[in-house]
Amino acid sequence: MKDVQNEKDTRNIPIDRVGVTSVSYPIVVLDPKENLQHTVANVTMAVSLPRKFRGTHMSRFLEVLNEFKGRVTLESLEQVTVDLKRKLNASGSEVKIEFPYFINRKAPVSGSTSYTRYDVVFWASYDEHFDFTMKVTVPVQTLCPCSKEISEYGAHNQRAKVSIEVRMNKRIWIEELVDVAESCASSPVYTLLKRKDEKFVTEQAYSNPRFVEDVVRDVALKLDQDDRVDWFSVSVVSQESIHNHDAFASLVRDKRS
Amino acid sequence: MKDVQNEKDTRNIPIDRVGVTSVSYPIVVLDPKENLQHTVANVTMAVSLPRKFRGTHMSRFLEVLNEFKGRVTLESLEQVTVDLKRKLNASGSEVKIEFPYFINRKAPVSGSTSYTRYDVVFWASYDEHFDFTMKVTVPVQTLCPCSKEISEYGAHNQRAKVSIEVRMNKRIWIEELVDVAESCASSPVYTLLKRKDEKFVTEQAYSNPRFVEDVVRDVALKLDQDDRVDWFSVSVVSQESIHNHDAFASLVRDKRS
Amino acid sequence: MKDVQNEKDTRNIPIDRVGVTSVSYPIVVLDPKENLQHTVANVTMAVSLPRKFRGTHMSRFLEVLNEFKGRVTLESLEQVTVDLKRKLNASGSEVKIEFPYFINRKAPVSGSTSYTRYDVVFWASYDEHFDFTMKVTVPVQTLCPCSKEISEYGAHNQRAKVSIEVRMNKRIWIEELVDVAESCASSPVYTLLKRKDEKFVTEQAYSNPRFVEDVVRDVALKLDQDDRVDWFSVSVVSQESIHNHDAFASLVRDKRS
Amino acid sequence: MKDVQNEKDTRNIPIDRVGVTSVSYPIVVLDPKENLQHTVANVTMAVSLPRKFRGTHMSRFLEVLNEFKGRVTLESLEQVTVDLKRKLNASGSEVKIEFPYFINRKAPVSGSTSYTRYDVVFWASYDEHFDFTMKVTVPVQTLCPCSKEISEYGAHNQRAKVSIEVRMNKRIWIEELVDVAESCASSPVYTLLKRKDEKFVTEQAYSNPRFVEDVVRDVALKLDQDDRVDWFSVSVVSQESIHNHDAFASLVRDKRS
Repeated sequence: MKDVQNEKDTRNIPIDRVGVTSVSYPIVVLDPKENLQHTVANVTMAVSLPRKFRGTHMSRFLEVLNEFKGRVTLESLEQVTVDLKRKLNASGSEVKIEFPYFINRKAPVSGSTSYTRYDVVFWASYDEHFDFTMKVTVPVQTLCPCSKEISEYGAHNQRAKVSIEVRMNKRIWIEELVDVAESCASSPVYTLLKRKDEKFVTEQAYSNPRFVEDVVRDVALKLDQDDRVDWFSVSVVSQESIHNHDAFASLVRDKRS
Repeated sequence: MKDVQNEKDTRNIPIDRVGVTSVSYPIVVLDPKENLQHTVANVTMAVSLPRKFRGTHMSRFLEVLNEFKGRVTLESLEQVTVDLKRKLNASGSEVKIEFPYFINRKAPVSGSTSYTRYDVVFWASYDEHFDFTMKVTVPVQTLCPCSKEISEYGAHNQRAKVSIEVRMNKRIWIEELVDVAESCASSPVYTLLKRKDEKFVTEQAYSNPRFVEDVVRDVALKLDQDDRVDWFSVSVVSQESIHNHDAFASLVRDKRS
Repeated sequence: MKDVQNEKDTRNIPIDRVGVTSVSYPIVVLDPKENLQHTVANVTMAVSLPRKFRGTHMSRFLEVLNEFKGRVTLESLEQVTVDLKRKLNASGSEVKIEFPYFINRKAPVSGSTSYTRYDVVFWASYDEHFDFTMKVTVPVQTLCPCSKEISEYGAHNQRAKVSIEVRMNKRIWIEELVDVAESCASSPVYTLLKRKDEKFVTEQAYSNPRFVEDVVRDVALKLDQDDRVDWFSVSVVSQESIHNHDAFASLVRDKRS
Repeated sequence: MKDVQNEKDTRNIPIDRVGVTSVSYPIVVLDPKENLQHTVANVTMAVSLPRKFRGTHMSRFLEVLNEFKGRVTLESLEQVTVDLKRKLNASGSEVKIEFPYFINRKAPVSGSTSYTRYDVVFWASYDEHFDFTMKVTVPVQTLCPCSKEISEYGAHNQRAKVSIEVRMNKRIWIEELVDVAESCASSPVYTLLKRKDEKFVTEQAYSNPRFVEDVVRDVALKLDQDDRVDWFSVSVVSQESIHNHDAFASLVRDKRS
């Protein structure tokens, strides 16, 4: 059969990225407590395409994905990007794995346990060298300092999402970034709270009012002090309970420069 | 050209609904203050298909939609369903128009104005007779009565969505269902609030704690007393600020039976 | 601490459903080939609330969910609905579990394997008796019979989704409903196809043109003949490649009446 | 009332962006044929925050939005970014306006008209100077050259989305980018097609097979030759009808360097 993709292309235009996206796939990730965690990923895989070829061979992306039997680690992702570069004769390759990750959490007073979901993105690329970032999105509660200050009683509060993305020089666990995010918010959120826990969380949030600006800065302070982090990006989106829109703050820092 | 859709079908199976969906289209709806409001709709149109025909003629749905030049009213929807039934030789027809509707609102203290978005669904069908429902989804704030009662200070609160769907025997405006929903919540939400408004809204919510159960019941009480309403469905979904999941309550009542 | 939810309510309005929704949770489901499959569910749990109580106890839903350690089967869902009814003193209870399910599939010619995702919903309720439905959504290809007939060459085709929901009197596996859906479409879709597979699938679809009306009727014929099925609902949504909107067809049949 | 946002901050961390997002608002944009088009926008507005202030004043974003009465043009966006910078004492400001835009299109043979939706993003910022990009996403059809070549008959085809984002030195209309995208695909898509149009579009696509790689390169060639374009980014995502995932290609070019 004719290999149309392999035809010579005369338009003289290299393509930055060609590949597959929105591939839903079962994967296994490392879990420091339970060793391995099964979850479901949304996968994107791509390579750069030199000017001389008409197309890439899309089926090879899925073959590479299969070879790793869904085992997604920092090490396997480096191997995947190396394999993609080689098998597709590309000058660069890229893989993005987005997945929900669950941690078994204890309620603050009753100790009742339940799973909380955190959304994680592993992004890896290999152009001239291997590059990797891990992003964790953590649901938290924010309570508005202005609302508390100006009101006779009460203060508006709401669910917010803290996203922390890092480039690291030593392993950092998902659990560690969750801890950073939660410790900088007005309060963590939990899946299961008994009445005494609800009292605790309500009072904790009221005692720790935080603007999105506060959360983003406090996360930045912690990551600045962590020598394993070379680069980071933080954003906070707060689903304001007095509006039908969200407030947000974000910053990016490169500690290597 | 051969009319494949018109072929005789021997499987002897009538189809409940055949049509087009996710059609994005500019429309115009009635606005009691500004006469007409331009907005963007997501349209579904369908007919029932008798057992003897192989297929329906999908292009005719769009022709009917075009004939009304995007003018969506109770009256035009009745005409659309009648036209669909006739033009497609069907025993029944159905149209669903989903759109955002904006109302210019005043902040409670400063009087500053801004638009708030409400999501509306007009659903019309004509089988043996014309049937029509209007559904309005209203963003509000709920503040938890339990959290307020058991905590020394503060109370968790959050954005919630109240959806009210009605069958009516006399015209009811979108604005009226918005008022019902907001009056049954802990507080309305606003797009623009100055500091004195934020104080007002915070205190109003703290003074009006409401479970989703309370909101759904209070809305039901109001609609029970409104003689223009023959049938209603109410649901409330509250984006709990202490959890990463939602609480909800719903009920349906047919006053005709 | 005061039990606000347990307060007497004087509004005299029973509520159809009160509960939690959008709970993301890790679950385990039965897999006839690999015994068990780990996946991630979106969970809704609710009960009816008698007129005399002000509120339900939301934390109990999560406690019940935890007790089953995420093991979701027809049997465990019956137990969950029974437990919810009892623990929450309700006249009825309801659980909905939505999850992606993966089947390892062979490409039609090369035999290369890869996982394909199917979206499954288990819905269970217990009012006066236990009720259960299983819904499976299957991605397929549809090729338009009209386009093929009237064109000199080619025919428009596209990805479509077939959703089959059944009430059953004997166990039916997810895999069986996937087979029904695929056998009624122009062609299945696959995650990994080598070039000879792509040729096969392209020709298979061109040889099996199907309107959404055809797919829905052929699925209905098969389910009509399956004595394990008491009731079914079928819908097909086709992402028309010549439009920016979708075509759909749907029908519901109750074989018990 | 105390101005908490204005408090001195000692953490010494400037924030890149602080603001509001997911604000749904009615807007008016220029339409070369009908002069003005009413539509509904999703708005993000932000400023940079100097290290010395604790927070920004979120309500001012909405006040600025209101002052322009929803009139969104290149000129008004420059004014909005200037106003935001000044009113919020910021070193930089940013506005993103995402909206559906409708063009009344003629079917290729019958000339029947209907509206097609294109998704547009205006992004403007003012740090040291004003910067503006316009992005238009265009639904099209792609037909696979490989599938056509290797199959005895037929070829898989599908809906695809072409996104073109440009920085320009002279006005370019949304309509012009739509034309570029459609002319580089296998065929445009239409909302309303009569049978003779469907024949035309089917044959046109079969005669113009295009990989995502082809589309992205052909768009790049056209934008390279347009002197009004200083910088561009193109991506194509094709909803492969033989898979349940998408193929994509993307490239970015800066003609100024």
